[in-house]
Amino acid sequence: MPLSKKLLAEFFGTFWLVLGGCGSAVLAAAFPDVGIGLLGVSLAFGLTVLTMAFAIGHISGCHLNPAVSVGLCLGGRFSSAELGPYIIAQVIGGIAGGAVLYAIASGTADFSLAGGFASNGFGEHSPGGYSMTAAIVCEVVMTMMFLVVIMGATDKRAPAGFAPIAIGLCLTLIHLISIPVTNTSVNPARSTGVAVFVGDWAVAQLWLFWLMPIIGGALGGLIYKFMARED
Amino acid sequence: MPLSKKLLAEFFGTFWLVLGGCGSAVLAAAFPDVGIGLLGVSLAFGLTVLTMAFAIGHISGCHLNPAVSVGLCLGGRFSSAELGPYIIAQVIGGIAGGAVLYAIASGTADFSLAGGFASNGFGEHSPGGYSMTAAIVCEVVMTMMFLVVIMGATDKRAPAGFAPIAIGLCLTLIHLISIPVTNTSVNPARSTGVAVFVGDWAVAQLWLFWLMPIIGGALGGLIYKFMARED
Amino acid sequence: MPLSKKLLAEFFGTFWLVLGGCGSAVLAAAFPDVGIGLLGVSLAFGLTVLTMAFAIGHISGCHLNPAVSVGLCLGGRFSSAELGPYIIAQVIGGIAGGAVLYAIASGTADFSLAGGFASNGFGEHSPGGYSMTAAIVCEVVMTMMFLVVIMGATDKRAPAGFAPIAIGLCLTLIHLISIPVTNTSVNPARSTGVAVFVGDWAVAQLWLFWLMPIIGGALGGLIYKFMARED
Amino acid sequence: MPLSKKLLAEFFGTFWLVLGGCGSAVLAAAFPDVGIGLLGVSLAFGLTVLTMAFAIGHISGCHLNPAVSVGLCLGGRFSSAELGPYIIAQVIGGIAGGAVLYAIASGTADFSLAGGFASNGFGEHSPGGYSMTAAIVCEVVMTMMFLVVIMGATDKRAPAGFAPIAIGLCLTLIHLISIPVTNTSVNPARSTGVAVFVGDWAVAQLWLFWLMPIIGGALGGLIYKFMARED
Repeated sequence: MPLSKKLLAEFFGTFWLVLGGCGSAVLAAAFPDVGIGLLGVSLAFGLTVLTMAFAIGHISGCHLNPAVSVGLCLGGRFSSAELGPYIIAQVIGGIAGGAVLYAIASGTADFSLAGGFASNGFGEHSPGGYSMTAAIVCEVVMTMMFLVVIMGATDKRAPAGFAPIAIGLCLTLIHLISIPVTNTSVNPARSTGVAVFVGDWAVAQLWLFWLMPIIGGALGGLIYKFMARED
Repeated sequence: MPLSKKLLAEFFGTFWLVLGGCGSAVLAAAFPDVGIGLLGVSLAFGLTVLTMAFAIGHISGCHLNPAVSVGLCLGGRFSSAELGPYIIAQVIGGIAGGAVLYAIASGTADFSLAGGFASNGFGEHSPGGYSMTAAIVCEVVMTMMFLVVIMGATDKRAPAGFAPIAIGLCLTLIHLISIPVTNTSVNPARSTGVAVFVGDWAVAQLWLFWLMPIIGGALGGLIYKFMARED
Repeated sequence: MPLSKKLLAEFFGTFWLVLGGCGSAVLAAAFPDVGIGLLGVSLAFGLTVLTMAFAIGHISGCHLNPAVSVGLCLGGRFSSAELGPYIIAQVIGGIAGGAVLYAIASGTADFSLAGGFASNGFGEHSPGGYSMTAAIVCEVVMTMMFLVVIMGATDKRAPAGFAPIAIGLCLTLIHLISIPVTNTSVNPARSTGVAVFVGDWAVAQLWLFWLMPIIGGALGGLIYKFMARED
Repeated sequence: MPLSKKLLAEFFGTFWLVLGGCGSAVLAAAFPDVGIGLLGVSLAFGLTVLTMAFAIGHISGCHLNPAVSVGLCLGGRFSSAELGPYIIAQVIGGIAGGAVLYAIASGTADFSLAGGFASNGFGEHSPGGYSMTAAIVCEVVMTMMFLVVIMGATDKRAPAGFAPIAIGLCLTLIHLISIPVTNTSVNPARSTGVAVFVGDWAVAQLWLFWLMPIIGGALGGLIYKFMARED
């Protein structure tokens, strides 16, 4: 598959992740009386990955996430030559997802970017008021375990074809645990895709949601590689 | 498989989509204290497609949706010769689903068609008061991504047998995002199946829920076709 | 596989269906503040079937339901010679599930059988006050579509191995729609398994939850058989 | 695969089960207005097992639970020579999961171990005030059925590759039923992993959550073995 098609797939995939995941949070989570809550948002994030992994896994591998691309690189599953272009396509896709979400969400009188627009944050911008230290531990460990699952579920010894289910539902699980802590990133492109619209604190805190997921992803790739070697 | 059996399958499938999806919304979404909410409705819509895709995918392909049939046509997966009959069977099936739902729902004293009967709407008839522009963007983009997932998950290079899961849960995801905007159509047959019982504004706004899903579906079919070509 | 082992499997499977499905309703649905609601109950019923179909499908076929056994008979998939013993094993299993649920549920001060113990009912015993006519339409149509999905998902032309997912989640879907109407039966063994502990109205209304699911199951088996024939 | 790698996999898997399952309960279950509730916690527990079974099933078999290891031993699927090391790795992994959860959860002002930290309990420490007898019946029967599903879904006659879905969602189902009774253990390593941080009553009641799941697991392994023999 030519690189241009892979990048197009990563663009659309990350577009869908941000539009779907953050969209469910912004539009439906707190809808009066019948809102989907954090459970619905967790499911939505996971399903963006599950659906795209079935749709474009055979085109680009469906990373949709710089931390995943880095982790797969260190785990020996992805060529570092394509790392830069993949990350750029993911970030552009994420911002495009944020833009379309803004176009829809701003179509009702109640909307305001001051509600956070599903941005990630810590300290006073953590949904549950969690400290920066808690946010660091959470983002590193969650992304680390995400990569262990991604590496394991796509291992040749794992059941063939099921990886999109395992990986998508792992992202659901990660959100079920950690939305109250950081609004859950584990994905710098997802964080960037909405933060650029909010600006201010959301951009100021963005460094943590680039650095920690990438550290966690790198750890996860290395841990699985070591754990799965048959010697 | 003879065309008559395919049309019968499309009839029953779209019947189930409207009875199950709209039925969960009308009967169970706002049930006091323990109602299933928008999350339950989203799951129900997706499961109508997931279950039917396993049950009749080998008979008719399980489109259940004029926008899907159009998108698959433009994506090169479905013969335009069968497009007309498929759409007619889907609309009749959708109306039959609405009729059985009416027979059940009207069996309790609290019921009234004035509650909307799960019809799609925009502006003052949008659940969250979203504008016509927001509704147009939402229906086009959601249906476009639906077709990307449908085309991708049924691609020969995707894991065999999983398409019903990917496609059904994609419809769940679409509802998790967009019920507050338009009550979520992405399917003209589903919109028609309940609107004809409500009449009035529901029928007056029906044009948008025919036009936009079909435009979105066409775009999705074409985008995937371009993205997946290996040259 | 000898018949005795098949009957043992049907016993344990129906035991699990009643203990798990009705158990989630009795123990967890209305738990203060964090209860699982009708959505959780719907998921639980479906998962009893999904898990058992993977666990014992290769032993007995995992019917767990007299209406399913009858429908499969008429659909040409099950021998009428084993119909009687299967139904007896299912009913005994269902009652055993009700007994263990009673043993657990009665271990807290708040419990009372007057709460209904998850029995099925219509009219004044319908959760949402639905009439007997609505209950009849609902139980017949839901069981009919259940059998269409069961027949279709286990058709040789359907993807192999996925039937437990399709069938289990179809039962979830049926509950998402119809708990408010009849508390959802579509299964005479499930209805009997709890009604015998409640007695009174629950036993007096049991005839509907034997007759209508069996009629619906028979219709579904015949409809699929006709629809799937390639001529 | 060398034993050391298997034990490392069991460590990480049980770490994830406690961090994810108990973490969702501690951090997100009762989050104001949009909390995930018992339904979200049930899903989280199941998804820890589903994701890990795909990720490390081919390394260690992914038991993550002393009661599972014992049940598989008696069911003839696991060597008793590795039973001790497996259980030790599971308990250490569970405690490590509890430690990381503590590090995250204590990063907000509202946190207190007095909230129970997702420990299992009966009598006055049962979430719904269920007696010790109810707790015993519940833990034995739930673990018994868990092992029936595990043994059945990994039987060579069951569909290949689906076992992680069946087993993970069975754990979800078990939680949907029994969180109100004991906060759901069915896993001594999970109970121990959080109880050691709470001390006091949580440790004092720990005996029941070792003994009953192991008895239940043993029963389940033996029942399936008997039921599935083709003679």
